[in-house]
Amino acid sequence: MKTVKVGLGVRSYEIIIGPGLLDDRETFQPWIAGAEVFIVTNEIVAPWYLQKVRKALSGKTVHQMVLPDGEQTKNLETATRIFDRMLGIPLSRAATVIALGGGVVGDMAGFVAACYQRGIPFIQVPTTLLAQVDSSVGGKTAVNHPLGKNMIGIFHQPKRVIADVATLVTLDPREYSSGMAEAIKYGMINDPDFFSWLEENMERVMAREADALEYCIEKSCKNKAAIVEQDEQESGVRALLNLGHTFGHAIETATGYGTWLHGEAVALGMVMAAHMSVRMGLLATEDMNRVTALLQRAGLPVDSKTRLCPDELKAAMKTDKKVKDGRIRLVLLRGIGQAFVSSQYPESVFNDTLQHYASGRA
Amino acid sequence: MKTVKVGLGVRSYEIIIGPGLLDDRETFQPWIAGAEVFIVTNEIVAPWYLQKVRKALSGKTVHQMVLPDGEQTKNLETATRIFDRMLGIPLSRAATVIALGGGVVGDMAGFVAACYQRGIPFIQVPTTLLAQVDSSVGGKTAVNHPLGKNMIGIFHQPKRVIADVATLVTLDPREYSSGMAEAIKYGMINDPDFFSWLEENMERVMAREADALEYCIEKSCKNKAAIVEQDEQESGVRALLNLGHTFGHAIETATGYGTWLHGEAVALGMVMAAHMSVRMGLLATEDMNRVTALLQRAGLPVDSKTRLCPDELKAAMKTDKKVKDGRIRLVLLRGIGQAFVSSQYPESVFNDTLQHYASGRA
Repeated sequence: MKTVKVGLGVRSYEIIIGPGLLDDRETFQPWIAGAEVFIVTNEIVAPWYLQKVRKALSGKTVHQMVLPDGEQTKNLETATRIFDRMLGIPLSRAATVIALGGGVVGDMAGFVAACYQRGIPFIQVPTTLLAQVDSSVGGKTAVNHPLGKNMIGIFHQPKRVIADVATLVTLDPREYSSGMAEAIKYGMINDPDFFSWLEENMERVMAREADALEYCIEKSCKNKAAIVEQDEQESGVRALLNLGHTFGHAIETATGYGTWLHGEAVALGMVMAAHMSVRMGLLATEDMNRVTALLQRAGLPVDSKTRLCPDELKAAMKTDKKVKDGRIRLVLLRGIGQAFVSSQYPESVFNDTLQHYASGRA
Repeated sequence: MKTVKVGLGVRSYEIIIGPGLLDDRETFQPWIAGAEVFIVTNEIVAPWYLQKVRKALSGKTVHQMVLPDGEQTKNLETATRIFDRMLGIPLSRAATVIALGGGVVGDMAGFVAACYQRGIPFIQVPTTLLAQVDSSVGGKTAVNHPLGKNMIGIFHQPKRVIADVATLVTLDPREYSSGMAEAIKYGMINDPDFFSWLEENMERVMAREADALEYCIEKSCKNKAAIVEQDEQESGVRALLNLGHTFGHAIETATGYGTWLHGEAVALGMVMAAHMSVRMGLLATEDMNRVTALLQRAGLPVDSKTRLCPDELKAAMKTDKKVKDGRIRLVLLRGIGQAFVSSQYPESVFNDTLQHYASGRA
């Protein structure tokens, strides 16, 4: 078992990573103060892991809510339904929420825990690679709005993150690849050694070999924790974590959530960021090729697989949280492991890249 | 002009109190970092003060949303409408929300600011006595749920609170009295001198004499700030601020929001807390009489003015945030200025008090 600490003063917590954690009472019980637990999960995850977790929670009063699967459910309407259920019990302020599932479940359950009676504790139990390497760490919670992804949410740090790698064995291959996009992202942002390690070990990681997987998740979480510790509420360096995400969110918004998986959209978004960086003379073409090659080996798209409209993408990007004084801020690359935030880029290069990838001709 | 500081580390802010503050650019402009402002107000307040505030904000891009009046609008549906509007603009993350109005506007606008793109700055401009002495201070934001008041919300501190006492001149007398309930509460909790001052000066305060009013608001804010500084997120001493509120919220829930004004329900709630305290031998009857006399002089109800059902009240109290392990925690009194939190009270006394006041016979 590996442990990664996220140091945020009174809001500090640990991410524990390893196989079989869900079977262990000790994984959960010392981190639950009250007598009541409210598990939020979904219809895909529940049949596999819900009973296991309920067993590990024996002795507590356990309530549960099983949501439909998919990004489409991540909205205020579903949050309202969860509040209705919690207040119907009524769940006390001393209760702990457990998010058992992927990023959608984690974001929603975290948001609901943050707002229920002005905030109750919650534990993240990510069961997808995407959630284990990224979304369960850092305290971002949110729901989507028809006009933009993650537009309604708040920062609410979990009490603990429990990443049981055994849950990844049953994960759908496309979902698995989607998670790899975020791991590759950390290499691209500021960890060239990890990027090289991924180049050397991608086959083992894709074969879900336990030790390679554990290392990949640990390294990703450490990278993310280091950035979150510096900038909990995204007023500075944390914006680097949005590499590929401004383009990616726009792709998701423009195509309707669900057509592209999050990591797929981010993968193409990272290619677009690299493309712009090359056109601006910042990034060597060779490095861009390393990026696309690694993403492809992880089973991720590096060109448009659906017909995207450049203007629609641009409109969606204007609503993005990263817009400042009308300029869309982007994360660009000076090299692999050298990402930076910029709103100083030629509009023509930005338009060219949108045209190149979003017209579906690439 | 008086200034009360609320010391909360990086989230510290000032409450400024005085006449004519809304006419002054300097009241607002130095506290607004971005170019955009989003004013949330209501149909009662807008005709009086919206243009004034817009003028003080000249040079900024000012958006506004005018809500219907009343506690009935304080729910997730209205919050959703505000989000729709903000994203429709689209309002950037650098924008500042201004809450111009009473407690309902402040709670809603604060909640929306807290959740919009995971939190943007907001300024409280309370225009009712209740909001000036209580709800605009301390960072509590929330919306109601059919099953309970303020059940969905979070802590989000404002950048500044601007209490222009000139706005109170136009305030409806019932609303004005409602605010006085909270001022009297501070005296009852831990400031017997302020309670005595109110006994001596109630006529002047009720006549809305500027200097008495300014003192009353300053003293209330100082008392509240001192408690909030000790316990920002209500894990301890802040619970004292709920004196009268557990009963009060139940009255509001059971009768449907709007029949009783908040301060009216709190006033009767404080009488009920005093009644229980007397029955438990903690409080002298004479002190309870001082409480009821002062509340009456402030134009507040001290017995049931609508037929309340004890069982209904009890059910509503069970959903209250103050419930811990099934016990309803109450704020009781050992004397004027000596409030304490307790879940150790005889159930029979609690039932007697409910019966006494909630049956409408008192």
